[in-house]
This record gives sequence, C-alpha cells and structure tokens, in this order.
Amino acid sequence: MKESDFADLATSGWTHANKKIRKTFKFADFRDAFAFMTRCAFEIEKMDHHPEWFNVYNKLTVELTTHDAGDVTAKDVELARIMDKIYSRFSA
Amino acid sequence: MKESDFADLATSGWTHANKKIRKTFKFADFRDAFAFMTRCAFEIEKMDHHPEWFNVYNKLTVELTTHDAGDVTAKDVELARIMDKIYSRFSA
Amino acid sequence: MKESDFADLATSGWTHANKKIRKTFKFADFRDAFAFMTRCAFEIEKMDHHPEWFNVYNKLTVELTTHDAGDVTAKDVELARIMDKIYSRFSA
Amino acid sequence: MKESDFADLATSGWTHANKKIRKTFKFADFRDAFAFMTRCAFEIEKMDHHPEWFNVYNKLTVELTTHDAGDVTAKDVELARIMDKIYSRFSA
Repeated sequence: MKESDFADLATSGWTHANKKIRKTFKFADFRDAFAFMTRCAFEIEKMDHHPEWFNVYNKLTVELTTHDAGDVTAKDVELARIMDKIYSRFSA
Repeated sequence: MKESDFADLATSGWTHANKKIRKTFKFADFRDAFAFMTRCAFEIEKMDHHPEWFNVYNKLTVELTTHDAGDVTAKDVELARIMDKIYSRFSA
Repeated sequence: MKESDFADLATSGWTHANKKIRKTFKFADFRDAFAFMTRCAFEIEKMDHHPEWFNVYNKLTVELTTHDAGDVTAKDVELARIMDKIYSRFSA
Repeated sequence: MKESDFADLATSGWTHANKKIRKTFKFADFRDAFAFMTRCAFEIEKMDHHPEWFNVYNKLTVELTTHDAGDVTAKDVELARIMDKIYSRFSA
C-alpha cells in the first residue's frame, strides 16, 4: 500500500515504521482498556487477523502487520480503522 | 428506599415492580451487547452485587434487587446508575 | 431433528421442551461464569447463532432454538456440544 | 523476596530477571488466550495489581513487577500463582 492510502491513520495517531503500523490507546482505567480489547477481539476473530498488542493498566499499544505479505496491507488498515471507531466511544 | 430517591432511573427506562428494578438495554449487535456486559462485569465484581441478566443477540434485560433485604436498596440504585453511564457510550 | 440424534445432550444435562434445548451450568463463582460466557461468545459470533442466556452470580441457563425453523436444529445441537466441551474445563 | 520463596514459579516456567518475573503462556488459539485473559482480568482488578502483558494470536507473555517497590514482591508471586492455576484449565 502507498502511505497516502492510509493518511487518515496518521491523523488519528498511528505511526508507520518497520513495515508495521502502531498506535498507543489510552483509557480512564484498566476496566475500560479491557472492555475495548474485548470489543476488538470479536472483530479480530471475524477478520482472522490478529494484532500484536501490549497492555499495562490503562494503556494499550497495538502493532499491525500482515505476516504473509511482510508488510502493511489493506487488512491492517481496515482493522486500524475499526479500532479507531470503537475507541471513539471509550475516549469521550 | 423511597421511589422518589431513584426517580432518575424511571427517566432512563428502569421500571420498578415486585421489589426489583428492571431495564432492557438495546445494542447494535451481539458484540456491543457483550462488550457492555464485560465492562459492567468489573463493576459487578467490585461491588460484589450481582444482577440477574438475560441476553439474546442485541438485547440485555437486567433485574436488580438485594436478596438479603428482600427489596431494592441503595446498592441496586448505584449499580443501575453505573450501568446507565456505561451504556451511554454504547448507544451513541 | 430426531430426539435420538442428540441423545448425548440429555446425558450431559440438556432438557428438550417447547422446541428448545435448555441447560443450567454452575460455576465456582461469577468470574468463572463470565469467563465461560466470553469463551462461548466467540463461538456464538462465529456461528452467527445466538442463545438466550440468563446469568445470575455462578449460574448460567442457556436456551437454544433456531428461530427461522421454529424448532431445534443441527445448529443448536452443535452449539450445545461446543458449550459442553468448553464447560468441561470450568467444572473441574 | 528471596528467590527461594518462589522456586515453584521457576518450575512452572517463570523466569526472573531485571527485577521482573516473566512467563509466556501458549493456547490452542486466540479465543482461548483471550478467555484466559478475561478470567485473569477479574483477579488483576481485585488485587489492583496490573501486569504488563503482550498477546499475539495464541501466545501471551506476562511480566510482573511491583513498581512502588522497584522489585518483585509477594503481590507478583501471588498473581503469578493465580495465573498458573487458571492456566491449568486452558492447557489441558
């Protein structure tokens, strides 16, 4: 994918490096962080596309890449956008 | 508790009958309903006050009462208000 | 489906009445009950076949039917068997 | 804490380095990994002691330390033992 195809993700805080896209989400507390992860888990399973994600208390860092392609693909961009949409409910 | 002490709950859709308060929450789909339940589950455990709740697809009916008291108590009202607050994120 | 096609479910505690199959699962506590529900939720979404389920503290009653068919179908029996398999880890 | 006070954790796969204890749990799939995390999340909240945990598909790496103490404490050892106990149901 061309960087310009996911310019919207840069705007919402995703960075692109080492053939991955990466974002750290922040929440009020662990409970909110985990409920967000649960909601995302259903999408992850549905897409059969699993992130590397790292949580500690109210922070969650997500890294997305497509291992088969060895690069960021449309699947990663789609999942990133879905996560942003779900996050919009939790960050208010 | 006097009915007037939780008049706010009637406004948000809770009904009071048979020494219980009761509300049906509606969601976009099962995934949203279950993420809501997960977020509530942490509060339920923290309060050690467990609802009777019934889910099918995008609907969740919650009934609250305090078994030791045989009636609606401040604990039920508190949990109902917490659930309403969490729901405000999911109904948008 | 013929009753004899899911005789195994009767053995594990499912009852058949009113064009539904029904079982009450018991757990050590609410945390176990909810973790079981979470694990099942992934299967439910994958099958796009949603139970009516009712939880209070450490008990979970599940009712399965296929609304389109107005009766118990192979989908219900499949989901019931999956739930029993998941439950085998929680009842130990 | 003395290393000998949590020798049992070394036996179950925890390593001790850089003032943390660390273990990678493996599961059949993402669904099992996430159900395990959900069950643990209740204990984490109850103890108000939050791990650094990293998940990708069927793997979960947990790191425990007590930030206030700048070292591994009894709280970390307690949570590690609880996680091992919960894991025993998922690894069967």
